[in-house]
Amino acid sequence: MKKLINDPDDVVTEALQGMAAAHGDLIRVNLDPAYIVRADGPVQGKVAILSGGGSGHEPMHGGFVGRGMLDAACPGAVFTSPTPDQVQAATQACDGGAGVLHIVKNYTGDVLNFETAAELAAAEGSNVRAVVIDDDVAVKDSLYTAGRRGVGGTVLAEKIVGAAAERGDDLDAVVALCERVNANVRSMGMALTSCTVPAAGEPTFTLGDDEMEIGIGIHGEPGRERLPLEPADRIVDRLLEPILEDLPFSSGDRTLLFVNGLGGTPLIELYVVFRRAAQVLEERGITVARNLVGDWITSLEMAGTSLTLLKLDDEMIELWDAPVLTPALRKGL
Amino acid sequence: MKKLINDPDDVVTEALQGMAAAHGDLIRVNLDPAYIVRADGPVQGKVAILSGGGSGHEPMHGGFVGRGMLDAACPGAVFTSPTPDQVQAATQACDGGAGVLHIVKNYTGDVLNFETAAELAAAEGSNVRAVVIDDDVAVKDSLYTAGRRGVGGTVLAEKIVGAAAERGDDLDAVVALCERVNANVRSMGMALTSCTVPAAGEPTFTLGDDEMEIGIGIHGEPGRERLPLEPADRIVDRLLEPILEDLPFSSGDRTLLFVNGLGGTPLIELYVVFRRAAQVLEERGITVARNLVGDWITSLEMAGTSLTLLKLDDEMIELWDAPVLTPALRKGL
Repeated sequence: MKKLINDPDDVVTEALQGMAAAHGDLIRVNLDPAYIVRADGPVQGKVAILSGGGSGHEPMHGGFVGRGMLDAACPGAVFTSPTPDQVQAATQACDGGAGVLHIVKNYTGDVLNFETAAELAAAEGSNVRAVVIDDDVAVKDSLYTAGRRGVGGTVLAEKIVGAAAERGDDLDAVVALCERVNANVRSMGMALTSCTVPAAGEPTFTLGDDEMEIGIGIHGEPGRERLPLEPADRIVDRLLEPILEDLPFSSGDRTLLFVNGLGGTPLIELYVVFRRAAQVLEERGITVARNLVGDWITSLEMAGTSLTLLKLDDEMIELWDAPVLTPALRKGL
Repeated sequence: MKKLINDPDDVVTEALQGMAAAHGDLIRVNLDPAYIVRADGPVQGKVAILSGGGSGHEPMHGGFVGRGMLDAACPGAVFTSPTPDQVQAATQACDGGAGVLHIVKNYTGDVLNFETAAELAAAEGSNVRAVVIDDDVAVKDSLYTAGRRGVGGTVLAEKIVGAAAERGDDLDAVVALCERVNANVRSMGMALTSCTVPAAGEPTFTLGDDEMEIGIGIHGEPGRERLPLEPADRIVDRLLEPILEDLPFSSGDRTLLFVNGLGGTPLIELYVVFRRAAQVLEERGITVARNLVGDWITSLEMAGTSLTLLKLDDEMIELWDAPVLTPALRKGL
């Protein structure tokens, strides 16, 4: 295992200390239990948006804490759900009295622990609601998941819903918007290589020199099929087709196209992927009104990509364009 | 070779097409010869800032074209200098009549081709000046380089000098500022793995499972020494020591600490690196007044990191904080 770490047990804590040192103007970091909150939070009278999940997907979620996006994030151990007490503590730390929305990726451990945390926080007087994101069309059930997995759509939901909370929308409105984003977003990913969880020390899975995994999960969970490596354009077609069929997306739709890198794929390749995806959508009469390209929801150093497509409406576009100031995503502030 | 590409010969062109499709609001892309210019350029009466070099270091330089940073960028083939005619065409395309600054990384091919381009553009009436960046303390001469290599300091120079040009500084002032940044910035990098140039199809070099290369160049050029893998904190110390000694940096200095990923290293590890680097600087009484963490000057999918330290003055801080709106770097616009 070749990693820039000290003790595998200390990776998450030391990375959080690094984030605190780098971004003290934007965030505050609590180490035990581990959570990140807005430096200026809790913001009184504002709905708080909280997300979390296993570490190893950076910049998600901690990199999205700040004005216009998340009020708090709970990083678990690498690829491991945050604990209920951790989520509860973060919930109370960001609660400004107008309610707290938990944005939860659909993995069994996350869903259970966020539910327990919500009950604990409610007992302490917080008004907590949750929306579970399940945008991955690759598989119906999966390792760690009943139903579809939550992947790239989470990033888009956090930006859009975060902007709505920032402008003062109430908890009911924010919940309804988050559900609307989840209902209109679809994703699918693929991997060229595995990744290695520090505490495991060995690759999560193995792929032959000429193989790729289509429909991979962000923890290396099996996808739809393992195939010989193909040109990028063909791979993009394999990912887009099930996405487009599923909603379905149709001619005339305005969309946000999100080409995500899983951590080990160079940006130059992500733009090769974007080129083809944009071509296919244009051929089908689907407008790419907004886009996002880069490593935003990763799987440590996995090489590969995921595509996410969100059907936009006017409100979502306005909220996507709203200013944001976080360690990872910045614009207009 | 596992890459998300089609034909290796088409990678740069197709990535540029992807960039054009994604960022048409910010940039315009010319394919033959290949260059990227600001969508609103040439900006009349403003000094134009142009950079370029081999592809494979994305987001540098194309991702830095836009308001407050570069007016144009010339991407060569992967790890190959742009041609003189390419640089000349880009120079004329961004020239707003107030002169053009070429920011050139110190590699023999880049320096020669930018010089030739400057002569060609001058013959067509452009007023061109050049500053060569050579911030890498690892080695004196190197494969492809007489003198020190230009690495991470280039990113900081482009941001700071770009902001100066944006506020209306004249060509003499912008040149002097760029030279001042270069005189006050030092860098050093290390690699855990090699990378593979698409047209070569094989890794540029090989490292054993337990080896790392200290002082690596951004094209995989040999560094100072090849050592057994060590904990991240020890690696950071090995990189920082020669940087601190070289300028030298002293107690009381205000600095910008830039922890860069080479493409294949997860962000969580870069924050582990940042933590240690910030600790060491604090122990020495050196203030980290600003910072940058992430993949900004990469070597395709190489795993590793580079540290860059810039001694700041008031003007540099003001220009670092100025708004910027480019595909890769955004703030305040």
